[in-house]
Amino acid sequence: MTANPTACLLIIGNEVLSGRTRDANLQFLATRLGEIGIPLREARVIPDVEDTIIATVNECRARFTHVFTTGGIGPTHDDITSECVAKAFGVPWEVHAETRAIMAADYARRDPPVEFNAARLRMATLPRGAVPIRCSETTAPGFSMENVHVMAGVPRIMRSMFEALAPQLAGGQPIRSHTVHADYVYEGQIAEGLAAIQARHPALDLGSYPYYRGKGGGVALVAKGTDGAAVEAAAAECLALLARFGAAREGEPAPEG
Amino acid sequence: MTANPTACLLIIGNEVLSGRTRDANLQFLATRLGEIGIPLREARVIPDVEDTIIATVNECRARFTHVFTTGGIGPTHDDITSECVAKAFGVPWEVHAETRAIMAADYARRDPPVEFNAARLRMATLPRGAVPIRCSETTAPGFSMENVHVMAGVPRIMRSMFEALAPQLAGGQPIRSHTVHADYVYEGQIAEGLAAIQARHPALDLGSYPYYRGKGGGVALVAKGTDGAAVEAAAAECLALLARFGAAREGEPAPEG
Repeated sequence: MTANPTACLLIIGNEVLSGRTRDANLQFLATRLGEIGIPLREARVIPDVEDTIIATVNECRARFTHVFTTGGIGPTHDDITSECVAKAFGVPWEVHAETRAIMAADYARRDPPVEFNAARLRMATLPRGAVPIRCSETTAPGFSMENVHVMAGVPRIMRSMFEALAPQLAGGQPIRSHTVHADYVYEGQIAEGLAAIQARHPALDLGSYPYYRGKGGGVALVAKGTDGAAVEAAAAECLALLARFGAAREGEPAPEG
Repeated sequence: MTANPTACLLIIGNEVLSGRTRDANLQFLATRLGEIGIPLREARVIPDVEDTIIATVNECRARFTHVFTTGGIGPTHDDITSECVAKAFGVPWEVHAETRAIMAADYARRDPPVEFNAARLRMATLPRGAVPIRCSETTAPGFSMENVHVMAGVPRIMRSMFEALAPQLAGGQPIRSHTVHADYVYEGQIAEGLAAIQARHPALDLGSYPYYRGKGGGVALVAKGTDGAAVEAAAAECLALLARFGAAREGEPAPEG
């Protein structure tokens, strides 16, 4: 797993830090990045503040194979991600002629036609050298600048941009995962046995997650890693461990309710 | 707003970075911290990796007035937050006698009694000098170590720990917020006018958030800051701006559906 490329996600937006908006992008990207073998190793939520965005982009693009950003690429004054990425790379932020033409044709085709004003032109303005990420949801693009991939914050548009980008990313080995669980079994009972399983499978991540269901609850154990056979072996050991204390079952516990 | 104390949240757990678990703590803490005048300025999701936790805690406790952590204080091998905070502060990690006595009494009182084994004793082991955060949900405590406040990852327990801690935090001025919205009005139309309102109220944060509802949608504008009169004035200007393009309304748009 250590040989896999790594990913960092920057969620850019005051609205997440103020509690107004509940982020809906982290879980999607975490799951998809695991599937294509570029595991997410860190995520940060940062405000729409120029110095913070520039410093964070520069720190993270040096530390991770890929940096993905969401948010801040619309037409309003608080949409400053694109300009900040240009400053982080030390390149001009300039109108991208091909993108302007695509957006102009789109706006002219609308009924009634949409005015291609200065605010909307910001969405056709990219760091010099950026490669647009075009998707079916909007003609205002995301873009890749070297290993930094800038996407919209609106989940529907972000997902479309990510799926357009994903085939071009050199992935590693997909992360395999196997979950088992048992009701009325508690972490304090199985901690010692679980640590022994982890010690036998040092290349895997074994996680223990309590859950609560009305007056009961239990624990779910998750084995993860790139070696599918090792994941299956560890999951079988976890199932046997749970069976010593209760009714062990395959898979995730049923949702609450 | 610049005079207010600041907060950073560290969400510690592989399960959030793998997509297994959707974080449920960020939005709660963001909202509550704004209410008590300690605005959240950054959040990070980091893995259960010792070096990463230690380095992140040390970086963030120097940069922010308060650092809150969630996750990694249970009894299993992947619960390493408490040990890592001890290492970050360079102090021993040792059994906290008062906490051990409280937990022992709790476990003895259960029917059937719960074994106070080595795994559970980890939850009574704290950095030297830490002040326990006791709550009504569990006798296994969180703790404060100087400006670092370590809480459980389970939302119900985290909330209880936060509410126990909050009265002891020296807050600043609460963040006031006023939202207006209009259906069928789009960001590209109001961007210029909104920038002018922002320029007239530099101490406020004005945010613009598109929303989508079936075949329609619109935009919500949010004014935030510690000066309630300025927030009301800016919100009135936003309402007037939206009214130039559509049916402007008070408050958040209705939920989708």
